[in-house]
Amino acid sequence: MARASRRERRQKQGHGVVPQLPWQRVDNPYPPMEPLSADQVEAIHQASLNILENLGIEVMGEDVQALFRDAGASVDESSGIVRLDRGIVEQALATAPSSFTLTPRNLDHAITVGGNRINFGFVSGAPNVHDRINGRRAGNMADFEKLMKFAQSFNCVHFMGNQVAPPIELPPNNRHLDTYRAALTLTDKVISGVPIGGGRIRDLIEMVAIVRGLPAAALQDDPSVIGNININSPRKLDLEMAHGAMMLARHNQATIVTPFTLMGAMTPVTMAAALAQQNAEALLGITLTQLVRPGAPVVYGAFTSNVDMRSGAPTFGTPENAKANMAGAQLARRYGLPHRTSACNASNTVDAQAAYETEMALTGAVFGHGNLIYHAVGWLEGGLVASFEKIVLDVELVQHMMGLLSPIDTSDAALGLDAIADVAPGGHFFGSPHTMARYDTAFYQPILSDWRNSQAWEEAGGQSATERATAVWQQVLAGYQQPAMDPARVEALDAYIRLRREEIGDGEP
Amino acid sequence: MARASRRERRQKQGHGVVPQLPWQRVDNPYPPMEPLSADQVEAIHQASLNILENLGIEVMGEDVQALFRDAGASVDESSGIVRLDRGIVEQALATAPSSFTLTPRNLDHAITVGGNRINFGFVSGAPNVHDRINGRRAGNMADFEKLMKFAQSFNCVHFMGNQVAPPIELPPNNRHLDTYRAALTLTDKVISGVPIGGGRIRDLIEMVAIVRGLPAAALQDDPSVIGNININSPRKLDLEMAHGAMMLARHNQATIVTPFTLMGAMTPVTMAAALAQQNAEALLGITLTQLVRPGAPVVYGAFTSNVDMRSGAPTFGTPENAKANMAGAQLARRYGLPHRTSACNASNTVDAQAAYETEMALTGAVFGHGNLIYHAVGWLEGGLVASFEKIVLDVELVQHMMGLLSPIDTSDAALGLDAIADVAPGGHFFGSPHTMARYDTAFYQPILSDWRNSQAWEEAGGQSATERATAVWQQVLAGYQQPAMDPARVEALDAYIRLRREEIGDGEP
Repeated sequence: MARASRRERRQKQGHGVVPQLPWQRVDNPYPPMEPLSADQVEAIHQASLNILENLGIEVMGEDVQALFRDAGASVDESSGIVRLDRGIVEQALATAPSSFTLTPRNLDHAITVGGNRINFGFVSGAPNVHDRINGRRAGNMADFEKLMKFAQSFNCVHFMGNQVAPPIELPPNNRHLDTYRAALTLTDKVISGVPIGGGRIRDLIEMVAIVRGLPAAALQDDPSVIGNININSPRKLDLEMAHGAMMLARHNQATIVTPFTLMGAMTPVTMAAALAQQNAEALLGITLTQLVRPGAPVVYGAFTSNVDMRSGAPTFGTPENAKANMAGAQLARRYGLPHRTSACNASNTVDAQAAYETEMALTGAVFGHGNLIYHAVGWLEGGLVASFEKIVLDVELVQHMMGLLSPIDTSDAALGLDAIADVAPGGHFFGSPHTMARYDTAFYQPILSDWRNSQAWEEAGGQSATERATAVWQQVLAGYQQPAMDPARVEALDAYIRLRREEIGDGEP
Repeated sequence: MARASRRERRQKQGHGVVPQLPWQRVDNPYPPMEPLSADQVEAIHQASLNILENLGIEVMGEDVQALFRDAGASVDESSGIVRLDRGIVEQALATAPSSFTLTPRNLDHAITVGGNRINFGFVSGAPNVHDRINGRRAGNMADFEKLMKFAQSFNCVHFMGNQVAPPIELPPNNRHLDTYRAALTLTDKVISGVPIGGGRIRDLIEMVAIVRGLPAAALQDDPSVIGNININSPRKLDLEMAHGAMMLARHNQATIVTPFTLMGAMTPVTMAAALAQQNAEALLGITLTQLVRPGAPVVYGAFTSNVDMRSGAPTFGTPENAKANMAGAQLARRYGLPHRTSACNASNTVDAQAAYETEMALTGAVFGHGNLIYHAVGWLEGGLVASFEKIVLDVELVQHMMGLLSPIDTSDAALGLDAIADVAPGGHFFGSPHTMARYDTAFYQPILSDWRNSQAWEEAGGQSATERATAVWQQVLAGYQQPAMDPARVEALDAYIRLRREEIGDGEP
């Protein structure tokens, strides 16, 4: 019955080849779900200050140690252990902003990070790619480009994390120039730098400035770039990560500080200990950014999940992971900082497990009020794979969440007493004028769900959601439209890349 | 590494052949998620009173109409339309209890219905059965018995709804005696009556009294039985349903009043209208129970979901369905009544769609504070099928929710500062004494998730969660243990059934 105006609805919903919700800001209108009481938050806070003051965290690099020493921290010369007293941490927390905006080349795709705003991120860091047609393979440039096309095409993707599926056929010391170029030309959304040392971050800042048509210095007042650094848990900040963060902060770009804390492996098995350790590690990284540049945008990141104690394998989308996602957001709010969390799973294939684990993690991330939800679209196999079918599945999960967060209209027209009066007891509303005026936009239109009856579904091939997802990504890829860019900027981008490739040579960027 | 004491852990977790959580009370410690503001709840309340006062609801049966007429309602003789003014409704709401307990033959399996207590229900009403070994078939007694064994074996199933997969080889007028017998002997949990007329309800009350070793009259002070009646939406209460509810109320057993309100079909397409109509219909049914017996236990039921406007097919687990689950709970709380909701899906197979739709509905049901969550375990194909593999998947989903609702321990031992101090920066916690003392019970142990790495998973056959679920239900069925019952009670039960079969003959029960 909807056939007549499906094209119209599709245009209204702002998509090309498949039905999807338009690009939009997502705010969570519900109070955050909080598994910790205020006293428990305080207990974790105090335990983490205790860790920072008494146990300390190993910090590599004399220049990094010097920053902490100059701020009054104790630095053990032989071990590199930095001990921070609470005054230094409090000073840093006082200058870190509670919210900030990142602007990519398409100004309409700017994202605000903070408050109850939720931004969904594309899978990042996966070394491999998988789809049902071509199987599993190591990251490569052709797939990287396809992944960027998906990230651009699906409106619910607000930003991209670290390099997904790094193209291993290209040299490690300059492949970031190729992936940045692909991301900046094939998408017009916020992208992340590779914070392995400062050079790769500086390159992204320069290249984003070019595509935005601004001098690089202008980005200091109008941040564009994010970079996620991990703490090498337990209690170690690696040199390259520190240098990445320092470069981001120096240019007033956003650093996300994410301790890599799998309970039972990198932290004790108890969640309270994992949260205390995570908190200490995050506070150290956050402090570093504020020592470099007070007021630089920084995000309290968390990645606390557990391991399978029988095998040591990382697990995600467990009840513990979901609770940790909510508890992490509580700690970030304790400090008035934006929060980065994740929606991961540990399934080996795009099946019911992949769906329920991702949904559980997403429940913690969304209802806990995460501001940046990493890996929300496309993550599979505990992060070893970026999966095309999983991208489609996750777009459905994320759009469901967006629908759940949208308000209920209780205007008189929506209450529809006249419409109710018009239909006799035991009748139906299919043809009523109230229905006909609204049926096309009344309900969320899924991208993947199949609602045919059993017989029709069987006759059409009896495909599972995973099998149907293949057709969806094929359609999306075929219908991809590159966002236009001034050819002069593309030329400038390529000139920069040529220059930098020469400069870098066989060395480090 | 867990091999040594897995048996011990399993025993601790209170299961037989597969790892699962023990039978337990589930309370939701979080404030309910509420999509409606207080003003919006009031607007819907007022609209529903308007419907009851001005449009009315068709009520069949002179005896039923007489109850309303005697209470002061207007009854239109020719149409059967009953119009209730708000005074009658308010009087009924004043006598309905806010919470009550239902006790089955195993006193440890009693359930409380109200407050923030959440009870998960087994799939009910499905006409067909499916599993991956035997395919799809119509309901039959052999499968009904298997289903009862699953409901008994899985600890997270708190109660059973209406007859699942009715055995169509048995006569419709007395097959309830066979299904009651199977449920009462194969399980020791709360079961539902078939409220198609009063006779089938009276039979269950008598049979439950026998297995509890009590006179039937004693159940009036100690309710055991629930029955769910649907309103034939829009605005029609069928005779058989009314008689079922009246028999339940007369004996002080619990009636659940559930309007069958699919937006776009049985109500207008707008959610506000659906909720107003649902509310009017529920209030009429609730009022009926209180007219029969003030104080009789009654539950505000809701089943508001939408239809696919392209085909008219019912859909479940949509964002609209999840929001309606939460909004329904808000309305029930407005009246101080317990709430019944559902966790359904419309998938044709146990795939990612089945998982994410069920999880979405469950999100609305659990976080909205539903007290009875119907169909939480085993429902497939929009309710046309009770699926064995879906039972296993749903146990995983429900147990995940139970894990998410459990508290975080922040005692000093859990904060584990000594354990953190014991591991050097960059080290790991696998062998630490703090870990070794806790690893076996630290994390939720899944029933279905597979966390092996990709290669090990491939080598073991590369099974999807759905394929793995088959092995789980086979194990559970093989390991089923019948809960003991005094043979004298079984004899009494059989004597009652013989007697009633003769009494009923070819007529109605």
